[in-house]
Amino acid sequence: MKYSVIVIGDELLIGQVTDTNSGWIARYMAPWGWEATWVKVIADDAHEITCAIDEAFAASDVVLMTGGLGPTKDDITKPTLCSYFGGELVYDEATASQVEWVVSQRHLALNDYTRAQAMVPQSCRVIQNQVGTAPLMWFERDGKVLVSMPGVPFEMQTMMEREVVPQLLKHFHDNVHIAHRTFVVTGIIESLLAMRLDEFERALPPSMHLAYLPQPGLIRLRLNGTMNDAEALHDAMDLQSRRLHEILGKSIVSDQDEPLAQIVGNRLRALHLTLATAESCTGGNVAHQITAIAGSSDYYQGSVVSYANDVKTRLLDVEESVIAEHGVVSEPVVRQMVEGVCRLLNTDCAVATSGIAGPGGGTPQKPVGTVWMAAKCGSHVAAQMRHYPGERSRVITRATTDSLLLLLGLLE
Amino acid sequence: MKYSVIVIGDELLIGQVTDTNSGWIARYMAPWGWEATWVKVIADDAHEITCAIDEAFAASDVVLMTGGLGPTKDDITKPTLCSYFGGELVYDEATASQVEWVVSQRHLALNDYTRAQAMVPQSCRVIQNQVGTAPLMWFERDGKVLVSMPGVPFEMQTMMEREVVPQLLKHFHDNVHIAHRTFVVTGIIESLLAMRLDEFERALPPSMHLAYLPQPGLIRLRLNGTMNDAEALHDAMDLQSRRLHEILGKSIVSDQDEPLAQIVGNRLRALHLTLATAESCTGGNVAHQITAIAGSSDYYQGSVVSYANDVKTRLLDVEESVIAEHGVVSEPVVRQMVEGVCRLLNTDCAVATSGIAGPGGGTPQKPVGTVWMAAKCGSHVAAQMRHYPGERSRVITRATTDSLLLLLGLLE
Repeated sequence: MKYSVIVIGDELLIGQVTDTNSGWIARYMAPWGWEATWVKVIADDAHEITCAIDEAFAASDVVLMTGGLGPTKDDITKPTLCSYFGGELVYDEATASQVEWVVSQRHLALNDYTRAQAMVPQSCRVIQNQVGTAPLMWFERDGKVLVSMPGVPFEMQTMMEREVVPQLLKHFHDNVHIAHRTFVVTGIIESLLAMRLDEFERALPPSMHLAYLPQPGLIRLRLNGTMNDAEALHDAMDLQSRRLHEILGKSIVSDQDEPLAQIVGNRLRALHLTLATAESCTGGNVAHQITAIAGSSDYYQGSVVSYANDVKTRLLDVEESVIAEHGVVSEPVVRQMVEGVCRLLNTDCAVATSGIAGPGGGTPQKPVGTVWMAAKCGSHVAAQMRHYPGERSRVITRATTDSLLLLLGLLE
Repeated sequence: MKYSVIVIGDELLIGQVTDTNSGWIARYMAPWGWEATWVKVIADDAHEITCAIDEAFAASDVVLMTGGLGPTKDDITKPTLCSYFGGELVYDEATASQVEWVVSQRHLALNDYTRAQAMVPQSCRVIQNQVGTAPLMWFERDGKVLVSMPGVPFEMQTMMEREVVPQLLKHFHDNVHIAHRTFVVTGIIESLLAMRLDEFERALPPSMHLAYLPQPGLIRLRLNGTMNDAEALHDAMDLQSRRLHEILGKSIVSDQDEPLAQIVGNRLRALHLTLATAESCTGGNVAHQITAIAGSSDYYQGSVVSYANDVKTRLLDVEESVIAEHGVVSEPVVRQMVEGVCRLLNTDCAVATSGIAGPGGGTPQKPVGTVWMAAKCGSHVAAQMRHYPGERSRVITRATTDSLLLLLGLLE
């Protein structure tokens, strides 16, 4: 089955908010075999909304719409849907009670704006929003379905999981089976990987397809397949997965579509090792990535973000003479940082970073983007230097990824 | 002038990569008075690309296209553009030299795939990519312009700044002046704010518009205006800004569109205060947000991410008896954490968090989403508890924002 996504909001088109809803929807719908035809981000404008719905119904069976439902003046989605599908806005008792309940749960009082949420188009079936005040609306036309959802990511996600997808699966039936597997590959650039997989790709059956999803420092390979016979599809996916492993060997660091911090965490857990981090230029982002993974407290002890030099010397036992001789962005300093934080937090492994994230602080010898990083596992310590082009956030992100990859290399 | 954005990539429609390019483009284009009509995310598919270009040319003067230009098989943008605008793919000597130079800068060798980048449509003017291998292509039709750019965010951004926008401004002329100002508001929910600003909005001249951009814990108000006379526009913006300040007073915490961590940082710098953080459930994200701001080393000393209890007691002097009596997620513990980290890192101010981010670890008394946080500034300490609904990443994000807001409240 095919679906289109319409994302509504002036704030998205002036760039003050970045749409993450469409990406979440795509990720959530794929395992059910739903195929996205396109995503369109449009303004809070009746004409644009109407045109986008026409276009979406022409291209797909289902239209998922997010946003444009807040209580403030700049939202016009509801009246537009009402005139598109016919009928009038009517006061809905059930919606009013639900809004009242949600507002009371937040220890707030109803006001004119939250009360207005109970006005809904006659032509829709309301799906009550269990976690917010804007109701969801289900419209049908010629066997096709449009669902209008709130733009707040948490509300949209919760209601997609609890109501929208179950109701869509019930409404439509689809006998084609679909499968996909993801392989995370490191240590090889995209163009070289493509050459190594050239024959593999040529030999794939026509119902299977390999996609390259490069990210800094690693590439996700996604193998997709569709067949009418579920068992045959499963066997074919197994066969091609084995072939990929034969070709790429240890370059494949995971068979799951999971973040790098999770791959590292799974290795640490399997090896019964504990981890600490000592961060200067990455400023807590390595710790943040690690602790974003549920269950990371199994192996992660903590971090010292030693932004000031004083913290490096006092807490991490980096010697002042070493900083004076080599500078704070140097191999000896990051080596002392991993040793120091392992002792301080009593762990087996550690990662450390020290660099110049910019925009200020660069010198001719050590320009902005210079980062030294070290990883330690037991008695093994590895250190490396990188020069990253680009702005501060990119330097921090790349240094975070590369320091985790440096540690991963020690966890074999 | 109006522009449309076409984002190409199968990986976006299956949700493995989230498009951030269109948001960046919108943010970057707005100050030049360019208005986005829509953003469309489509598959690597010749028919979809062709239809989207037709639609974009009908709606706007400029089409900005990103993605679909990598060296691997699943990219078909270039041949599609070639057949859309006519002519053939030809080998371009200047592009070949540029690709060779970029590849050599990365200490890599050319291969068949990077070499193929030098094949470009006859019908385009190439804009050499200074930081990657995929060339940018400038096409014109009936006075309108389409620019095809690589999908790698850093490459697209760098080339937009250095070449694309300067060339677009040279190509088009536009006498309408545009202005916008952003006000960051805290401590009031959207619907109440809308009621307080009802009269203000009614009294705005027709050429001015107020938009609400709510985020967890704060709301950005964006005042937009367009006029032919630049000076009159400037005066009108000044007048309405003053009125907004009169109505909202201290609820406006910033007159800039800047992140919360920057608002906090600016206050700390102005007051000559230093900051440390002690994080448990936020796991380094508070430190990461603070250090994402350039110049944060002026006031920020560092953080102790005390994920393990042992780290809280040994480094932050949290008493074991207090943990035993009240639990680690409790007011006494976060109060001891802010005191402890101020002593340890020798700072004036501190923020601390301790909570249950989930999905495991909840109890009936302290369910998942329970977070205690404290902020300290000199002798003032404030602590609060919050229950956040939703998944782990949401709990971490909300607790990060609220702990920074708690500190901001002490910095008056």
